[in-house]
Amino acid sequence: MSNPLTDLCSWLQLEDIDAAFLTSPDNIFYFSGFKSDPHERLLALVVFPESEPLLICPQMEAVDAKNACDYAEVIGYTDIENPWEKIKQTITTRKLTLRKVAIEKEHMNVERYEHIQHYFPAHSFISAEEKLRQLRMIKTEKEVEKIREACRLADLAVEIGVHEITEGKTEMDILATIEYEMKKMGHEMSFSTMVLTGANAASPHGTPGMTKIQRGDLVLFDLGVVYDGYCSDITRTVAYGDISEQQAVIYETVRKAQEAAVSISKPGISCAELDLTARNIINESGFGNYFPHRLGHGLGVSIHEYPSITETNPLLLQAGMVYTIEPGIYVPNIAGVRIEDDIYITESGCEVLTRYPKSLQIIQ
Amino acid sequence: MSNPLTDLCSWLQLEDIDAAFLTSPDNIFYFSGFKSDPHERLLALVVFPESEPLLICPQMEAVDAKNACDYAEVIGYTDIENPWEKIKQTITTRKLTLRKVAIEKEHMNVERYEHIQHYFPAHSFISAEEKLRQLRMIKTEKEVEKIREACRLADLAVEIGVHEITEGKTEMDILATIEYEMKKMGHEMSFSTMVLTGANAASPHGTPGMTKIQRGDLVLFDLGVVYDGYCSDITRTVAYGDISEQQAVIYETVRKAQEAAVSISKPGISCAELDLTARNIINESGFGNYFPHRLGHGLGVSIHEYPSITETNPLLLQAGMVYTIEPGIYVPNIAGVRIEDDIYITESGCEVLTRYPKSLQIIQ
Repeated sequence: MSNPLTDLCSWLQLEDIDAAFLTSPDNIFYFSGFKSDPHERLLALVVFPESEPLLICPQMEAVDAKNACDYAEVIGYTDIENPWEKIKQTITTRKLTLRKVAIEKEHMNVERYEHIQHYFPAHSFISAEEKLRQLRMIKTEKEVEKIREACRLADLAVEIGVHEITEGKTEMDILATIEYEMKKMGHEMSFSTMVLTGANAASPHGTPGMTKIQRGDLVLFDLGVVYDGYCSDITRTVAYGDISEQQAVIYETVRKAQEAAVSISKPGISCAELDLTARNIINESGFGNYFPHRLGHGLGVSIHEYPSITETNPLLLQAGMVYTIEPGIYVPNIAGVRIEDDIYITESGCEVLTRYPKSLQIIQ
Repeated sequence: MSNPLTDLCSWLQLEDIDAAFLTSPDNIFYFSGFKSDPHERLLALVVFPESEPLLICPQMEAVDAKNACDYAEVIGYTDIENPWEKIKQTITTRKLTLRKVAIEKEHMNVERYEHIQHYFPAHSFISAEEKLRQLRMIKTEKEVEKIREACRLADLAVEIGVHEITEGKTEMDILATIEYEMKKMGHEMSFSTMVLTGANAASPHGTPGMTKIQRGDLVLFDLGVVYDGYCSDITRTVAYGDISEQQAVIYETVRKAQEAAVSISKPGISCAELDLTARNIINESGFGNYFPHRLGHGLGVSIHEYPSITETNPLLLQAGMVYTIEPGIYVPNIAGVRIEDDIYITESGCEVLTRYPKSLQIIQ
């Protein structure tokens, strides 16, 4: 049976690559099941076409690494050891010759790049990313099950947040309650929860703070939950008390744009078509200048994966892709509205994994 | 008056460097006051010896960036524009010649390195990191005030956590309450809070989960709070009910090691001496093999900064440094104990910024 690691090994054989040197925590988790982010300390999974994979990690994580990934040789190093030397020794012991190495050019930093060039000087270095993206972009049913559960939890998290909206509460009060309930259930968030209101919500990447929610404000929730290593990502915007006609028009424009893009999601449609379907609706309503970001992004182990849903991406949707659709309109001092669902492309169409209602909800 | 940005410009002039191309969110915040992490999207602060700095960010953050950093030219780009082209245009318009550019080699990824080499092909690229570390390592009184407040909040967070210890609570229950209370006050944590108990705590980098706290367990808290962009980092270990003699011996060994290193902290002492003072106490008690990490690390805008307190670092402590002292002993299935304070080196000695008590606390 095919699995990501054997797919990667087949690619290495086919392309005559001697090793894939993976360094991003998410790719390492995807291939090894070992979840860790030791920051400035080196964590690497070296995959060979035929030899056993090597997992290099700080000594204090070596036991956990071996438990998570028993088919790899785990090499721990202390803070006063040189992990590059240890990798070199192992590769020498195994009598492997590395001429061509695939690396994560979007993750590996220049310092490590200089190290790898120093320790393995005869090599050519190519990017592994396109292949890694392709592998990760098409989810297995098992992965989708995890994302589906992460989405169910995200729906619940929004529900908890919406119920918390009352006079005098701050953005941080509501955010704290959402995260509290999720963490008590044992779940981590996929990213810093955003609860934004009033002028704050009118910035597409505002920061939650001690602003109190006021009647007549829109309240925007953007959050996600991790389930078994997989992320969800949802945005909902609700009204606290009666809102202005202009705010309502903005809300309905975003909702129509979002639902239009959802409704055409199926294999064979391009990412560009998806983006433009939503974007044209917003443009035609006169708010085109207030929708400054792409329509969406893939998600899975990482909160931002491929495909990237932009108006210029010709990539066709395929069964197994999971991505967000999240148009928004942000008019300074008037309104910030974004609505976001997570979509799973099936053989015949799509499944909307996030299910919290999208019709305008007015909290009294 | 000296400030970090003018110090950086002076260095560029002195070393005949035409620009510093900064890409890490923490360095950008340090120099510009603009806090953002747009992940895969480019965020960069380009500092010149004499020309106005350039801040490049996603279009949707451009207004926030300008508000935070009014002395820089802010260049926003949309998801379908090429930020490198926009930087090149601006530099061409300003008639600047870039021959030698300082970059963050430990942050810039290989893909961006290839881009910068492509767009500015005639340059030599050197590392800015040593200089950036030196600047950031010595804190101003204003910075220390922020860290001091972050430490006060960390003390409070530990207190909240310790009060939550009761029969039947899980690690996640306690963690959720700590973060809830901090967030309601408007504060973010500096990193994912750790509450570990029993066998979990015996892994130096364990992950909190749904394990219930049991009498006879040690409970380890490792957490930090951000105040105005500056981090604290504290670890305390307390006992729930009566613990074994061996657990108590381990606790006292860590406490002695930690307090010994704190007591010698002053200008002129080397990082190695600091590490070895604690390490020798642990070695002499026979637990040397169970202390697998360095003694501590600097902190400030980032949770891990310089100096690095290892047994091989000859660097001498100087007034203005802020760092952690956090020895630990982790004996599988027996006990995990770590005690960590944040230390500020003054002209004559040190100030211990975290103040939660360190004598063994037994919660009944």
